Amino acid sequence: MKFVDLKVGLKGFVTKTITETDVILYSGVSLDVNPAHLNQVYAEGSMFKKRIVHGMLSSGLISAVLGTKLPGEGTIYLEQTLKFKAPVFFGDTITATAEITELIPEKNRVKLSTICTNQDGKEVISGTATVLKE
Amino acid sequence: MKFVDLKVGLKGFVTKTITETDVILYSGVSLDVNPAHLNQVYAEGSMFKKRIVHGMLSSGLISAVLGTKLPGEGTIYLEQTLKFKAPVFFGDTITATAEITELIPEKNRVKLSTICTNQDGKEVISGTATVLKE
Amino acid sequence: MKFVDLKVGLKGFVTKTITETDVILYSGVSLDVNPAHLNQVYAEGSMFKKRIVHGMLSSGLISAVLGTKLPGEGTIYLEQTLKFKAPVFFGDTITATAEITELIPEKNRVKLSTICTNQDGKEVISGTATVLKE
Amino acid sequence: MKFVDLKVGLKGFVTKTITETDVILYSGVSLDVNPAHLNQVYAEGSMFKKRIVHGMLSSGLISAVLGTKLPGEGTIYLEQTLKFKAPVFFGDTITATAEITELIPEKNRVKLSTICTNQDGKEVISGTATVLKE
Repeated sequence: MKFVDLKVGLKGFVTKTITETDVILYSGVSLDVNPAHLNQVYAEGSMFKKRIVHGMLSSGLISAVLGTKLPGEGTIYLEQTLKFKAPVFFGDTITATAEITELIPEKNRVKLSTICTNQDGKEVISGTATVLKE
Repeated sequence: MKFVDLKVGLKGFVTKTITETDVILYSGVSLDVNPAHLNQVYAEGSMFKKRIVHGMLSSGLISAVLGTKLPGEGTIYLEQTLKFKAPVFFGDTITATAEITELIPEKNRVKLSTICTNQDGKEVISGTATVLKE
Repeated sequence: MKFVDLKVGLKGFVTKTITETDVILYSGVSLDVNPAHLNQVYAEGSMFKKRIVHGMLSSGLISAVLGTKLPGEGTIYLEQTLKFKAPVFFGDTITATAEITELIPEKNRVKLSTICTNQDGKEVISGTATVLKE
Repeated sequence: MKFVDLKVGLKGFVTKTITETDVILYSGVSLDVNPAHLNQVYAEGSMFKKRIVHGMLSSGLISAVLGTKLPGEGTIYLEQTLKFKAPVFFGDTITATAEITELIPEKNRVKLSTICTNQDGKEVISGTATVLKE
């Protein structure tokens, strides 16, 4: 999809069940070895009562939508805001949706609203992205 | 470290060399299989002339600082803003630094400036975080 | 084992329990992020009612038999046919068996029947391989 | 894309640079720990003079095209034939291309030619696939 084919209101999404494996691998990649994600005993004593997925891991699905779906190939990430609104638990199925909210043709920039919802439709992350579309 | 021990101006950081392996693992975890990260031939023809690291992967180091260093254990991520200012290449050594900029004791909230720099001291990501410190 | 030691009827096998972790890693390696493998909600609405293992992942066990058991070290893969006959689910224990069906000494070639069965003895993949044995 | 939108001659592809990391991960997933893939010293004494990528690993890109591009979501893998025509080395950038060659509407079946080429355009794998498109 080229810049001229983009329109305000267009949507793209990706969905994934986030597994314990994802959390383990992401902990190693990111260095975020916080016990809230990796220590079952600690997690049982925490606010959420069980291990939670890294907010930044779930946010990666937003990057996936932008880079592979909408605007897709040739997208350069410029800005992202993230509000972590509810915990994501192991085994949750998360859908990241991006919707174009503004086009700035003279700079080839695209603004999008970006949200992640779980299998119950609950919004777990909200925010906005700004990208450059080559 | 407890909330009462936190002070504006305190800093924490983590540093990691981001490898091809990190990028491969992160692509699978995030579903972000954008060729800018995974296709050497495509990348040579792109703006950056070689494969780049996912911006969201490098951003994970910010999550690592917050969750393991400052404020550390018991931190709940509420908000993050990210500006991707320069590309990160395979083999770059990235330092994420968080500095407390504001404390809101009545809500146990902490605001921090969060930046990532590469081995040459160049700022590659900037932004701010808001967290709840239990 | 050298070529002269090979005989029609000889069999080799490998067995592995295929885990969610294998599927997550394979998705990243192969770029096959099809929701049938990674999205629990999608999978529940599909023909098989749950997430299935990539057929090509299970087929890797055939490569393992050929390269490590029979004919073993020094095997060069030339051809493989695969029929995917039944789904493989997370946690299934798959045995790949290769049996020599023909030897072509003047070309150092070996033909084998190759099948994969699950823990209930059900055939999930069938096919044939042709290899060069150095 | 629905079955009725498929046409003989339609093509899809995916491309990836296959790294040492992919080979290491795939060896663990598949149990194919053949020294041709993992032992540099052994490989230097072999026909190819260096470590080669598992043929079945590269073949995974064919599964990725079928399951994520053409025919895409809702594809059930029925059959695949593979001819390994030339070695793939670490760092090679492989493109898997699938082209529809026959449609069998009464059975919702699709036949495709499937080839993998390297960064020099050399064909490294050829074959055919048969899939069911829901």
